[in-house]
Amino acid sequence: MLFRQIFDERLAQYAYLIGCQATGEAIVIDPERDIDQYVKIATAEGLEITAVAETHIHADFLSGSREFAEQHGVKVYLSDEGDADWKYEWVKKGNYDYTLLHDGDTFKIGNIELKAVHTPGHTPEHIAFLVTDLGGGADEPMGMATGDFVFVGDLGRPDLLESAAGVAGAMEPSAKRLFESVQDFLELPDYLQIWPGHGAGSACGKALGAVPETTVGYERRYNPAIRTAITGEEEFVDYILEGQPEPPLYFARMKRDNKLGPAILGTLPQPRLLTARELVKLSGRIDIVVLDTRLDRTAFMAGHLPGSVFAPLNKSFPTITGSYVEENAPIYLIVEEKNLDEAVRSLIRIGLDHVVGYAEPDALLVYDETHGKLNSIEEVKFDSVKAHQNIHDVEILDVRGISEYKEGHVPDALNVAHTRLLVRHDELPSDRRLLVHCGTGARASSAASLLARLGYPVALVNDEFENWPRIGELVTGEPKLATA
Amino acid sequence: MLFRQIFDERLAQYAYLIGCQATGEAIVIDPERDIDQYVKIATAEGLEITAVAETHIHADFLSGSREFAEQHGVKVYLSDEGDADWKYEWVKKGNYDYTLLHDGDTFKIGNIELKAVHTPGHTPEHIAFLVTDLGGGADEPMGMATGDFVFVGDLGRPDLLESAAGVAGAMEPSAKRLFESVQDFLELPDYLQIWPGHGAGSACGKALGAVPETTVGYERRYNPAIRTAITGEEEFVDYILEGQPEPPLYFARMKRDNKLGPAILGTLPQPRLLTARELVKLSGRIDIVVLDTRLDRTAFMAGHLPGSVFAPLNKSFPTITGSYVEENAPIYLIVEEKNLDEAVRSLIRIGLDHVVGYAEPDALLVYDETHGKLNSIEEVKFDSVKAHQNIHDVEILDVRGISEYKEGHVPDALNVAHTRLLVRHDELPSDRRLLVHCGTGARASSAASLLARLGYPVALVNDEFENWPRIGELVTGEPKLATA
Amino acid sequence: MLFRQIFDERLAQYAYLIGCQATGEAIVIDPERDIDQYVKIATAEGLEITAVAETHIHADFLSGSREFAEQHGVKVYLSDEGDADWKYEWVKKGNYDYTLLHDGDTFKIGNIELKAVHTPGHTPEHIAFLVTDLGGGADEPMGMATGDFVFVGDLGRPDLLESAAGVAGAMEPSAKRLFESVQDFLELPDYLQIWPGHGAGSACGKALGAVPETTVGYERRYNPAIRTAITGEEEFVDYILEGQPEPPLYFARMKRDNKLGPAILGTLPQPRLLTARELVKLSGRIDIVVLDTRLDRTAFMAGHLPGSVFAPLNKSFPTITGSYVEENAPIYLIVEEKNLDEAVRSLIRIGLDHVVGYAEPDALLVYDETHGKLNSIEEVKFDSVKAHQNIHDVEILDVRGISEYKEGHVPDALNVAHTRLLVRHDELPSDRRLLVHCGTGARASSAASLLARLGYPVALVNDEFENWPRIGELVTGEPKLATA
Amino acid sequence: MLFRQIFDERLAQYAYLIGCQATGEAIVIDPERDIDQYVKIATAEGLEITAVAETHIHADFLSGSREFAEQHGVKVYLSDEGDADWKYEWVKKGNYDYTLLHDGDTFKIGNIELKAVHTPGHTPEHIAFLVTDLGGGADEPMGMATGDFVFVGDLGRPDLLESAAGVAGAMEPSAKRLFESVQDFLELPDYLQIWPGHGAGSACGKALGAVPETTVGYERRYNPAIRTAITGEEEFVDYILEGQPEPPLYFARMKRDNKLGPAILGTLPQPRLLTARELVKLSGRIDIVVLDTRLDRTAFMAGHLPGSVFAPLNKSFPTITGSYVEENAPIYLIVEEKNLDEAVRSLIRIGLDHVVGYAEPDALLVYDETHGKLNSIEEVKFDSVKAHQNIHDVEILDVRGISEYKEGHVPDALNVAHTRLLVRHDELPSDRRLLVHCGTGARASSAASLLARLGYPVALVNDEFENWPRIGELVTGEPKLATA
Repeated sequence: MLFRQIFDERLAQYAYLIGCQATGEAIVIDPERDIDQYVKIATAEGLEITAVAETHIHADFLSGSREFAEQHGVKVYLSDEGDADWKYEWVKKGNYDYTLLHDGDTFKIGNIELKAVHTPGHTPEHIAFLVTDLGGGADEPMGMATGDFVFVGDLGRPDLLESAAGVAGAMEPSAKRLFESVQDFLELPDYLQIWPGHGAGSACGKALGAVPETTVGYERRYNPAIRTAITGEEEFVDYILEGQPEPPLYFARMKRDNKLGPAILGTLPQPRLLTARELVKLSGRIDIVVLDTRLDRTAFMAGHLPGSVFAPLNKSFPTITGSYVEENAPIYLIVEEKNLDEAVRSLIRIGLDHVVGYAEPDALLVYDETHGKLNSIEEVKFDSVKAHQNIHDVEILDVRGISEYKEGHVPDALNVAHTRLLVRHDELPSDRRLLVHCGTGARASSAASLLARLGYPVALVNDEFENWPRIGELVTGEPKLATA
Repeated sequence: MLFRQIFDERLAQYAYLIGCQATGEAIVIDPERDIDQYVKIATAEGLEITAVAETHIHADFLSGSREFAEQHGVKVYLSDEGDADWKYEWVKKGNYDYTLLHDGDTFKIGNIELKAVHTPGHTPEHIAFLVTDLGGGADEPMGMATGDFVFVGDLGRPDLLESAAGVAGAMEPSAKRLFESVQDFLELPDYLQIWPGHGAGSACGKALGAVPETTVGYERRYNPAIRTAITGEEEFVDYILEGQPEPPLYFARMKRDNKLGPAILGTLPQPRLLTARELVKLSGRIDIVVLDTRLDRTAFMAGHLPGSVFAPLNKSFPTITGSYVEENAPIYLIVEEKNLDEAVRSLIRIGLDHVVGYAEPDALLVYDETHGKLNSIEEVKFDSVKAHQNIHDVEILDVRGISEYKEGHVPDALNVAHTRLLVRHDELPSDRRLLVHCGTGARASSAASLLARLGYPVALVNDEFENWPRIGELVTGEPKLATA
Repeated sequence: MLFRQIFDERLAQYAYLIGCQATGEAIVIDPERDIDQYVKIATAEGLEITAVAETHIHADFLSGSREFAEQHGVKVYLSDEGDADWKYEWVKKGNYDYTLLHDGDTFKIGNIELKAVHTPGHTPEHIAFLVTDLGGGADEPMGMATGDFVFVGDLGRPDLLESAAGVAGAMEPSAKRLFESVQDFLELPDYLQIWPGHGAGSACGKALGAVPETTVGYERRYNPAIRTAITGEEEFVDYILEGQPEPPLYFARMKRDNKLGPAILGTLPQPRLLTARELVKLSGRIDIVVLDTRLDRTAFMAGHLPGSVFAPLNKSFPTITGSYVEENAPIYLIVEEKNLDEAVRSLIRIGLDHVVGYAEPDALLVYDETHGKLNSIEEVKFDSVKAHQNIHDVEILDVRGISEYKEGHVPDALNVAHTRLLVRHDELPSDRRLLVHCGTGARASSAASLLARLGYPVALVNDEFENWPRIGELVTGEPKLATA
Repeated sequence: MLFRQIFDERLAQYAYLIGCQATGEAIVIDPERDIDQYVKIATAEGLEITAVAETHIHADFLSGSREFAEQHGVKVYLSDEGDADWKYEWVKKGNYDYTLLHDGDTFKIGNIELKAVHTPGHTPEHIAFLVTDLGGGADEPMGMATGDFVFVGDLGRPDLLESAAGVAGAMEPSAKRLFESVQDFLELPDYLQIWPGHGAGSACGKALGAVPETTVGYERRYNPAIRTAITGEEEFVDYILEGQPEPPLYFARMKRDNKLGPAILGTLPQPRLLTARELVKLSGRIDIVVLDTRLDRTAFMAGHLPGSVFAPLNKSFPTITGSYVEENAPIYLIVEEKNLDEAVRSLIRIGLDHVVGYAEPDALLVYDETHGKLNSIEEVKFDSVKAHQNIHDVEILDVRGISEYKEGHVPDALNVAHTRLLVRHDELPSDRRLLVHCGTGARASSAASLLARLGYPVALVNDEFENWPRIGELVTGEPKLATA
């Protein structure tokens, strides 16, 4: 048996390639959509991917299962658990070779057996896979691919159904289902390896560790959520629903598409290289989105194409693009050629497929010389915020999450989480200048670019919020503008 | 003024980027079809390409002018010289911004003036461009982009019209027109730089030097063809038509497409990554072409996908693919991912756009393990050729050019130039084994793969022909099979 | 806690980076000698490596502990178990910050505790490390770094002390000690993760799996060696000593140097680029070694620098170079520049530090044109072997391992394992031509190059041994030349 | 004949590789010190470099001739013209194969003849090389490698002897010698190609064009300096000495070392990777130099290792490092690994060989977390300059060149060119805060870092000087602090 854990650092997502060397066959569990990454690894190991499986309908990325089925004709294994709202619809519509799994169902990849275990909670249809290396002489499983059920030191959050998918009242029942799943989990043997669907950095859990694997026995002993589940249901439900971070808005879209079937890519979108002259045609338009992927915040503020969004190609890229780009909007990138592939992959992994064109940052200079002025956004420090506090034509906008805001904020600051600005910006005044801040300037940079794009007069507070208490009063409590 | 000579080593082709730094504008003369290469260079220099020009209707690669016009809306400058058969047709049909040039016409790129000079011979409509740096204070030209008129130490061959485009009786009139063009060239001032369209390695001339630029005065003194033209027309015509190498067959297609307009690419074709299983579907098919780009001849002979053509990704790649792949055939590549872009660019530059899929060489191993046997072709040395000479079921096939064959060959060897096998293979016996040789084994390797693909029983003589005289008799004279 | 398993594919070696994010400290267990690889990973994770530890005195690669101590002043944790022959000597001689560990000793890296467990068998001083994430709230260990004690599906071989280090009569006592260590291992809780020192491909065990981690409980159930240990000591000793592959000869050197202290590198050796002219000075010399790292066997045989050794830069590179290069010999490489770093790292990892110069393969062509002829080695197939069998001036040399030979070989074939040729070649006749074969041609290619270097007349049987039975008689039994 | 112009974009320097394909020999004219770059190109072309030549004792980079002679035993061709102060000393001291050339001397590389032509002016010993392709049948030269004599559109400045080498009163005699050399140049035939030693961007001339080559005839017509030389000596001397930019101070060192012999490198210096802990030992020290090569000015100002110099790895890198780093100072780099080779090459090309260690930028974060605070330098805009103008404890420091200063500056601003700060900083007040500006913030960024390193209280005016006139008064005239 060959086992490979494949990590997407930006989404903190783990896929698993499991292959039988005797027959040359392999399966991928929870593939991302750019499936060539898995084919390359398998081929280099002398294996062929003949099947894919999903643990559940993902909310944070689009699944590659349909792409695999369409391109390579692989067999697809999906959950048939959960109620009517949680059925994979796409797989029944094409000419796919698929099996819908119920709790206890097994299938084989070469001499390796996979067994589905229904583990609802994070989602109703969630299954995990027990993997048994029959070819290696085993008759008990080696490990369990747990998807978003059990993470290293955490559990998959059961509130997404309500907070992201918008199903009111779903949180508590989900938490109770998760409680039951944990009880079953506790029946598993201690020695079993746990192969989770996410690692540190994901928005799918609150305390994911930077250790890639764990075991049933270790989690039984030290996973705080599981420990609470041992105590009792009520304690567990309280514990698990408390303080979960706000999920990005694009999660709802992922759910929908993973159910109905993500569009077939075939190959990656291949944006066309643009010249400065073509940037003219994109300048200031809001029916398309220009994503400026440069890392340097100050360089962006000093000069960027009018209407462009600051989306630095770092770990926040999926969150920024998933929250700031409207579905189906044609996307143009300001990106260095060497980073283009990486940017495109990040976008299509969350369903932003219409990547039409790109220009290298140098083209902005040609634009500026030849065709028109670049936009700029003023940068200020928190001492300017203090200075402006009593001036009527200025508002302070805090784009941190509501929980951060409540713990301490600038007096009279407005609050809209940066991930919700796209849908909530009209709650903001448009006749006064907005001084936009967050905790470090990172989120505020992107937020300021979005507000400028939408026509608001803005300045960026490019400063650490921890400097504020030395400058002005820190107040606690509810925001002036309510969050969703 | 900014001047950049841009070399395509595989086609030995020079394009020129000439820009005016004062206005930020630039022109490309004789661009290839994958125009992003020029846009990147221009952008990095702070320039925008606003125009393209062609010296003539190229025969050895597809021009990028139409692509530029379509994608970036640049102005196009083309020749309107030559008779009705030599008119650019595509430019009149689209909504293009173009100017058709006659001898003496001038236009400007920023503060740089280009002047068309009609220089027929290589082709009837051929023009060259005199470039004057008005912005630099000059009122005389700095250099001349000569296309396929004057090379360093050679002239563009006037026989292609007949030998490649198939216009019978065209050679001598063309040679005479070239003679006249040379007379005009000799009127130009000695100091003028000459910027040719090809360097060493191209099939467009017979003795191209490995020096990238020259001057009128130097060529007047030392260019053997020009020296002969100084002697007299008759001597020149004899000289220039003698011993030109056979042009690849795909040249005719290039002429046609450059006239009618190469298809618009938009972006490069993006072949899909295939798994071993999908190779099964390609195995042995002759309605598609699998090009195996590995460099190692022996590895190919030891095991390759049935029906695949050996097309190592070296300098011979355009000749092999241009001669062995039928127009519009869907193309699949066996190629390492890191070389994929290079392979695709090489293909589209000669109009082979249908690059549908690719697999990495490792996938052949998976195929061999799992799905079926790879093909092999036996390798022998010239001593085996000797041993087989009197055996009835074997023929020796010499795939060198006819002039090489005439100078000395194996007794009774058949001769078809490897570049003509695709159209002439039915002249070969199919009931006897063909021992295929060339001068070194390089051309014979690809030829043997093609013949195996077409169903002929073959073995490769992987040996240096210079070893033959020590082994057997060397005879001279005409081939048993006539060349076209 | 941050956990990273770092794999060297060529040596199938795992090092472990374990860090405490709260304090920014990290440790590396079993580092290789080119320690920059670990520093880069740690730095990117925001950690600083402040300590290193070793599980035992390695035999298959040089440890990076001393390098770490010398360069970065890190704390060193080493075993003080085992008898006087198995003491780390280097650490006491420098000005190092070190702790010698006995069974049960603990130390901390930030909030992570490591506990040494004496696990003799593979070597007398072998320890494993139990890792407890105190900062994560645990009071029991998460996993055990087992070094060469427990692998996934195997145990570290206890015969190396005798077979590689040359301690006669050591095998059985070592096997018994290993039996005891396994008994202690069986006391550990099932849930514990096992982080082994080697994966599939290493010469340190016989059946290593391609799964990177395992657990105590799983190994208890399915590790065949451990299963046998549960049965009884006698069965275990028989089992564990049977059929272990012959260790490469360089293992003895590794043991010595890891004990006395590997030389300090500071930075990687940086070979100088050579021109063809300088290759002349290297041609045919046996006081230096030219390693030709090209992958293409046939290309090497067709032309190589006289005296050079065929050492293709694939997974066999450490075995070939460790067996064919004499200690302290100045090394020159024929290598493409892009692979130079990889080749140098592979060499220094096994103590071949004197990498003086390199030339690119193209330089061989210049050499051949300008300075002298390249050598060639004839390639034959097994049918030639058959044809030569009764000819007096030819001997057939089988360079496979003795166990392979015994299972079936060509009648009258000599046998010396290719890894022992350097010390045993004078057992071979030098007045007759040697036809060198192995199972596939891979080992024989390198062996033939070594024999040619040493002055023997050779030809390479570049063929699969599985073809032999169709051609000639297959006999079993002892070799004509005894192995060591 | 093979001809290759090899460009170092950072130093705007051209070397020339000229080879004879018939004999496989090649020469490099004016090589840089990292000679592997030329060996690689030659080897790929099937050539061996057997000789090197220099046009003159370079002032802006260290020559690679000695390195070539030492490493590869090539023949060296150097000028023996000029007086006793301008003799190459190194070549006579080793066991080198060399020829000292006088005007008219010829030598051959294969079938190519080179002829030395004494062309004093830029320097007294300056020679140019006429290159004749005898093998190509020529008996007159094809081109002239003119070194720093004739550039495209300019001449090599004759003032360096005085302004950089410090020989008082040398300017005018040099200019007259140059005048004479130009007269001789005008005797050359128009057709001759001119291959200059520098292109656009070099400090060796004032108006270098972005065209890589030219001809005698074109320069005769349009080179303004040559045009003036045609008018008369007096006009020429006035013209050529007027307005030459101040040469960097390190030029004097280059002259000395190119005469006495640059140190032998053997291989490139190989700095050791440092951890954050080791940065502690470098913090604040002025006996070593830490060069921070990040491109992002604002990131450096926000946090950098105390004492480090801002030296972004762009085209200004040689000027900054050549002006800010004291000879023989041990150098440490903050640099991304992928740029390390490029940074090291740039340093050794100007004789900064003691590159001891490097850390990746991420290590600064680890340092900041674990070991100590990074330094910061405040950034202000010109409006703050205005606000501070009348405050006693602040001085405005303009680090532009004196000619820029004279054309318009902030009232009462001090002036020291940034390239002279290292030797002139004690002219500055150390008890008042210095607001450091230049034209764009680029030069001022590096200058501010140097001043902070030297203990001055500084702030950076990160603003365009063209904004100043809208804010405050622009005055002209001499600086308060005189330049050297």
